[in-house]
Amino acid sequence: MLKGRHLIDPMDFTLEELNEVFNLADQIIACPEEFAHTCEGKILATLFYEPSTRTRFSFEAAMLRLGGKVLGFSEPNSSSAAKGESVADTIRTVACYADIAVMRHPKEGAPKVASMYSDMPVINAGDGGHQHPTQTLTDLLTIKTVKKSLSNQTIGLCGDLKFGRTVHSLIKALSRYENNKFVLISPNELKIPDYIRREILQKNNIEFVEVERMEEVIDKLDILYMTRVQRERFFNEEDYIRLKDSYILDGEKMKLAKDDMIVLHPLPRVNEISYEVDLDPRACYFRQAKYGMFVRMALIAKLLGVK
Amino acid sequence: MLKGRHLIDPMDFTLEELNEVFNLADQIIACPEEFAHTCEGKILATLFYEPSTRTRFSFEAAMLRLGGKVLGFSEPNSSSAAKGESVADTIRTVACYADIAVMRHPKEGAPKVASMYSDMPVINAGDGGHQHPTQTLTDLLTIKTVKKSLSNQTIGLCGDLKFGRTVHSLIKALSRYENNKFVLISPNELKIPDYIRREILQKNNIEFVEVERMEEVIDKLDILYMTRVQRERFFNEEDYIRLKDSYILDGEKMKLAKDDMIVLHPLPRVNEISYEVDLDPRACYFRQAKYGMFVRMALIAKLLGVK
Amino acid sequence: MLKGRHLIDPMDFTLEELNEVFNLADQIIACPEEFAHTCEGKILATLFYEPSTRTRFSFEAAMLRLGGKVLGFSEPNSSSAAKGESVADTIRTVACYADIAVMRHPKEGAPKVASMYSDMPVINAGDGGHQHPTQTLTDLLTIKTVKKSLSNQTIGLCGDLKFGRTVHSLIKALSRYENNKFVLISPNELKIPDYIRREILQKNNIEFVEVERMEEVIDKLDILYMTRVQRERFFNEEDYIRLKDSYILDGEKMKLAKDDMIVLHPLPRVNEISYEVDLDPRACYFRQAKYGMFVRMALIAKLLGVK
Repeated sequence: MLKGRHLIDPMDFTLEELNEVFNLADQIIACPEEFAHTCEGKILATLFYEPSTRTRFSFEAAMLRLGGKVLGFSEPNSSSAAKGESVADTIRTVACYADIAVMRHPKEGAPKVASMYSDMPVINAGDGGHQHPTQTLTDLLTIKTVKKSLSNQTIGLCGDLKFGRTVHSLIKALSRYENNKFVLISPNELKIPDYIRREILQKNNIEFVEVERMEEVIDKLDILYMTRVQRERFFNEEDYIRLKDSYILDGEKMKLAKDDMIVLHPLPRVNEISYEVDLDPRACYFRQAKYGMFVRMALIAKLLGVK
Repeated sequence: MLKGRHLIDPMDFTLEELNEVFNLADQIIACPEEFAHTCEGKILATLFYEPSTRTRFSFEAAMLRLGGKVLGFSEPNSSSAAKGESVADTIRTVACYADIAVMRHPKEGAPKVASMYSDMPVINAGDGGHQHPTQTLTDLLTIKTVKKSLSNQTIGLCGDLKFGRTVHSLIKALSRYENNKFVLISPNELKIPDYIRREILQKNNIEFVEVERMEEVIDKLDILYMTRVQRERFFNEEDYIRLKDSYILDGEKMKLAKDDMIVLHPLPRVNEISYEVDLDPRACYFRQAKYGMFVRMALIAKLLGVK
Repeated sequence: MLKGRHLIDPMDFTLEELNEVFNLADQIIACPEEFAHTCEGKILATLFYEPSTRTRFSFEAAMLRLGGKVLGFSEPNSSSAAKGESVADTIRTVACYADIAVMRHPKEGAPKVASMYSDMPVINAGDGGHQHPTQTLTDLLTIKTVKKSLSNQTIGLCGDLKFGRTVHSLIKALSRYENNKFVLISPNELKIPDYIRREILQKNNIEFVEVERMEEVIDKLDILYMTRVQRERFFNEEDYIRLKDSYILDGEKMKLAKDDMIVLHPLPRVNEISYEVDLDPRACYFRQAKYGMFVRMALIAKLLGVK
């Protein structure tokens, strides 16, 4: 039962619970009109202590398309936090007005604290560099829908694998399904943290390789998950110049890939995927944004217990 | 008849009119679903020239729960005021789009000016340190609902009684009902202004005492209304150190209070009520926030003339 | 057919298409309740990279009064643009969540670029000093409704005719109708640009005069369109002092005007129209704001293809 639950960490839900959400998302995708009144009379509060237009829009559109209503703030300075109020008090007050809340906060753990004081469900929409569970749900639903399965996939993860929370959560999440293999593509300085390598991959006997160049491995991949490499992250300029093109996906590299490989990206992108790739039918990142809305619709309906 | 009226000053309504609002609020509390379409087709404009998340949320939730819609701004810089437009012009333009407006403004009197130029009802949601009439309605509805009467109460008001507009308005409002007594608890520097003492209390022969320490009087109270004392308000550091604990309500002090005393607070609190008090059934400040939404629902419906 | 179209430039629509919009606006004005569910299930995204409360309110009210819903941002800093995302990517992502978008942007051409990448209709709500097509629609609908015709009018345009995009667009738009004459009232420094004079007026053999003082010509006008003259625009202080009163419309000047002349202004005004004029029945600028909402209702419904 997901009714009344919170979603703070991407691993909060069991595989069965995730399936419950994905199955509802499938039904919504198949016939959105049937859900146009599912949340009638319900209010979602969007508490963005840090701006994130994309994530906020996705949640608000999800609630509005379910027939619910939305109130919130999108900037820290218009919030009561400016008056020194604790997150615990804020969430208890907001619970007087709303039925479910989404919180984005620059401090790790703030949404967790909020959930401990809240009678209504709280969804973590990103807490610092920590967690962003609905991005993981989005990634999983996209893979499940486009590749028809969350198992037996060879997933390439490319870019900054050291600091990218999205990537860490996705590795953890996909490690729970059978027979997935990971191809980790990054400069040496930006390899995945040791705890992921040991505690998740090695401990569970999951096959993985670590490489520096996308060209070497792109032909093996079922899924290519792109993220950005920031110039500042490199230790020295020579490395940056030598490697930077390896982390930019373009039409040339796409020629090396399988016909049914899909390209994902959490967005926003800067220049790590060339615009020419957008026209390739294997480019799925905008569709992924759409699945992000659908999975949030399913999540909200489940936590409110109206479906 | 409240249809088409404004609410600028907490004393704008007669006792009969207040009762009309409270009676409707009672009906809404009893069965909110019955009012889910009361304001269908109506738009509330929230004009916050100064941020106040809590007040804005309360009004927006009120309108949304009545089936109405909301547009507005929550920050001064996104408003036309930045272009030098007068409040008179702004309200007349907003009246082209909306059916009722709520205004918060850092300048005293701005909502009054707006109301003079407006064909639609204008509600003052706080003008500088001046008035905040819906907070007073909130306080009254909470007392009326929890204590069953607005008369025959001994009300303790604790904290900064000099600058707190909430406190001044509540004294004025409760002075209109029979046989209420006030216990004014504050440091010497922060006693209620003389005009309240003379024009409201003494003139109407209302019983009151002024004390410095909560411990001395808490056992006599039916209602304890807490507000914050800011360190900067004290004239000297010794007084602050000597007195500060007297203005913090904790479990120890609650032991001295009557079993049916209720604790109110306009929120946000900082540290003037210990978290341990939250679990005490006599702590009513979060319930008070909820009554704030209900009384605003009743007010909006009455001013729009739809109930 | 306007379904699926964008509106970027005031001249994007043919006269027939404009008529289609105006006819629907007429029907909405006559019976707004009939359109209260026209956009049910649709979402409007308001993307304001530059604040403009009035324009945003007008669009949001339009969508809400059609039964649709709204999400958006009203400030640049809460947008993904802050993360370096291109307008092309933003609009494609927003199109995952919304059905139609309104964009205001400080850079000329940004809404045009957005429209090139967007599957959903994009409406330009002002791009720098460039275009603001729904203001022009507002002006035309107001004239058509109040003066009963868009032809055979003598239109005075007063103020800063050099930099005012509103004025340029209105001249172009009214030049498409028969037998209109223009009276251009401005200081020498702020006369209309040469390309308007030559490419629009002279090329189409349209009658016009250019004068410095409103008093000389106000008695000839059917329509007086006021805009502001900013002191900084004058080359020298003497000119400013000599002329400034000629660009302020007051009760005295209104006495010289025809009984059925109407006064328009895109708002916000600062001091170019005296408050005493507001009470004159010929003052139409607040009514004009209301027509702005109605014409946007018609436009949204047409572009969405729901009417």
